[in-house]
This record gives sequence, C-alpha cells and structure tokens, in this order.
Amino acid sequence: MAPAGIGDSLEGIHAVAAAIAAGRVRQMSVEQQRLRHADIEQLVAAARGRGVAVDLVDDVRPQAATSAPQGVVARAKPIPLLTLSEAADVGDPAAVLVLDHLEDPRNVGAIARSALAAGVGAMVVSGRRAAPLGPTAFKTAAGALEHVGVAVVSSVADAVARLRKRGLWIVGLDGAAERSLFGCDLLTDPVAIVVGAEGAGLSQLVGDRLDAAVRIPLADQVESLNASVAASLAVFELARLRGGLD
Amino acid sequence: MAPAGIGDSLEGIHAVAAAIAAGRVRQMSVEQQRLRHADIEQLVAAARGRGVAVDLVDDVRPQAATSAPQGVVARAKPIPLLTLSEAADVGDPAAVLVLDHLEDPRNVGAIARSALAAGVGAMVVSGRRAAPLGPTAFKTAAGALEHVGVAVVSSVADAVARLRKRGLWIVGLDGAAERSLFGCDLLTDPVAIVVGAEGAGLSQLVGDRLDAAVRIPLADQVESLNASVAASLAVFELARLRGGLD
Repeated sequence: MAPAGIGDSLEGIHAVAAAIAAGRVRQMSVEQQRLRHADIEQLVAAARGRGVAVDLVDDVRPQAATSAPQGVVARAKPIPLLTLSEAADVGDPAAVLVLDHLEDPRNVGAIARSALAAGVGAMVVSGRRAAPLGPTAFKTAAGALEHVGVAVVSSVADAVARLRKRGLWIVGLDGAAERSLFGCDLLTDPVAIVVGAEGAGLSQLVGDRLDAAVRIPLADQVESLNASVAASLAVFELARLRGGLD
Repeated sequence: MAPAGIGDSLEGIHAVAAAIAAGRVRQMSVEQQRLRHADIEQLVAAARGRGVAVDLVDDVRPQAATSAPQGVVARAKPIPLLTLSEAADVGDPAAVLVLDHLEDPRNVGAIARSALAAGVGAMVVSGRRAAPLGPTAFKTAAGALEHVGVAVVSSVADAVARLRKRGLWIVGLDGAAERSLFGCDLLTDPVAIVVGAEGAGLSQLVGDRLDAAVRIPLADQVESLNASVAASLAVFELARLRGGLD
C-alpha cells in the first residue's frame, strides 16, 4: 500500500541538500555549467564529503520531473515512513496534520514546510491515489520532508477513526462550519487537524468522524483559500494557542 | 511603466468566471469536449448572457500560458489599476500589502486570494521585472484579483517611503527580526505590510525604510516559509488583531 519509494527521487537545491544532510543520497547529477555557483559548489562539496557519487552532465532536465530542477537531481534511499500509531505519538501534546486526498504536490510540500515550521512533526497522507509525495512535493518542502514524520494510509477515514480512539481530537477545516479556527481550544489538547482536498474539501466519510469542524473566517467575496494556505493558518494557530509563537 | 495589460489574458474556470462577472471578458475559447461538464456549461451560459463571443475549439493549450488551463482561455479588458495614493486609502484603518519583487506568479496569485479573504483590499507590486501578474497569477488568485486593488510601481522603496508619508506604519516580514508578527500592535493602525522576494527576502533599500521588522517564529529546523504562506499569515494576523476573525 505505502509507496515504497517516497523521497527516492529529488530535485532542486534545498531538497537535495537536506537529503544529503540526512545521509540518504546515493547519486547526484549536477549541471556542469552551474558548478561556479556558490550553492551548487557547496552541494557538490557536501555530497563528496559524504561519499556520494557526483555526475557532471550538460542538462539535468531530461531526468527531471519538475520544470525547474535548478541544475541538480539526485537518487536516494526512501525516507522511513511512520506507522499511524507512531504518528499519533508525535508532539507533546500530540499534533498530527491529516491530508484528505490533496492532489497538488506543491500544496503537500508547502504544507510539510509550514507544519515543521509551526512545530507539527507528523503528517498522515493517503496513498490510494497518485502519491503526491514525489520530487515536486520534496522540492516545494525545501527539506522539511526530511524532518516531518509521514504516515501513508490506505483510508483517511479509517485513520481518523483510529487517531480518535488513541485520544486525539479530530478537528476538520470546513468552510461551512460555524465555529472559527481562531481560538479553537481543542488545539491545545492532543489533536489531529484534517485538511480537505483542493476544490472538493473534506470527504463525507471523514466529515462524519470529526469532533469539531472549524472554518477560517473569510471576507464575503472569497469562497475558499488555497489548501496550503488554509493548512498553514491551522498549524500556526495551533502553535500560537500552545504558546509556541512568542 | 505600469504594464497596460494586467488581466487581459485569462485561463482556468474560476479566473475566467470572475472576469466575466466583472464585465471584462471580450472573447472566450472553450474546449468542445468539455461542454458537458457543469462548470464549463455554466461558464458558457454566463459568457453568452453577457454578450461575450464564445469560440469552441479542440484544445486551448496552444493558446495557454499555464499548463492546466482547464479547457478555457479568455481575452479581456485589463483590470483598472490603482494609483499608490488610492491604494493607501483602502481599508479603515488602511491596510496595504506590498510585494517586494516576488517572482513566482503562483505566489502572487495565492497572496491576492489570501489578502482579499482577510479583508486586505490593496496590493502594491513592482512593475520593473517580468510582471508576475499574468495568466498564472490570475488563475491562482481564483478571482481575487478582480476585487483586490493593485498599484504597480517602478520602485518599491519609493512606494514604501510615500506610504509612510501618508501615515501608514511600514511593517516588513524579516526572518532575522527580533519582534514577532503575532500580536504586533502596529497592525491595528493604518499599515503597509511588506513581503520580500522568494529566497532573497526584503531588498536592502526597503529594509532601511521599515518602522518595524517582524518575524514569523519558526521551529529550528526551518529557515523560512513559502512566500505566499508568510504573506497569508501576516494578513490573517492583521485581521485577527483587528477583530475581524470571530
């Protein structure tokens, strides 16, 4: 079920540098003409310092999945995944971000970066559809996916039920909810925050299993926020309410 | 100076629908095989109801700037721009978001969407480099750029100086600042929030003209946030402190 190869293919300077620092990179290809750039030079030095094979090539783009690999691609050992139980234990009190079938890997990557920044160290992601945890997500995460624990589940609804049994409040972002995200006191207890897909929002099965639905109050002219912005506001509100943002 | 054609080329369902509602669209091309989709059907009905010429084509992608135009592209009258003085008067108390040479149009579009959602109705954007306000920004903004007033300036540093003379506090996001964004009392007064470029941050000239630099507190493992996430946190903190998020 869980895709075996999460993080095995990396592109972009920050993502590759973070994977090198994590000791995961096996091989790196760099564009020859970029060697004089300081950031690429540092990357090559870091790779060689770790015994990583470095190949100089004319153009990495034919090997790249993203449109702007910044002159570097790498192959790496996959990141170790968490079990759902392990994810439920991250944080004190526990805090997990659950992504209900987000499809845009840039959103998933940006959310990982924000979660880590706000001190939320675990994410639960569905592995059923085309996994959004490929090179684009790792590039957008700018290294954060080396530090945020990820559990890949076959059913988000089941995962939510299991997190609830483990004593976490299940709080879902829902534009139609009455209650505001801001000041939501459940966030200071052990909690899983569920973010719905771009466009579709929370799936019905997940929506039925919430302890609380909260909305981000929006001006009348706006229907919804970008999914990564919504998730970021949620994790930072959690951090603020827990006194972590002084 | 100001690019004459901001918003004259549109792609994607939400962006085109919002421009039709704003009465700006002159011509729309739609992919024939998508006509049975409800959202495209509604779009065509809305366009025809406004007397917009609708062309059915096999594939809009050859005309498109984005990789996913969702089967629709349109030509429109440009959006009217604000002067800097007009931008400084939007909001009560005034609130303006200043983008210091952001380059990724997706960030600019997402920021417009968040600004409007948080009740910040004016943005100041540099027109010196490749304008980031093309079809991609409009698509990401999902209609918000029809409502947020935009002033395009040749110098962000000069614009900041002029906003300051008009009585706005100038608050810049800066990862190295001592003071936290969260709880910053200047945000309840007339204020311009300045967001720096991806990677580079605030330019020196702009940094020298701040009344306050504020940081978004981040966990140790994270250097910075995505620019659109940082800007979104800032406008929502402004809204929260002004009591607009209950």
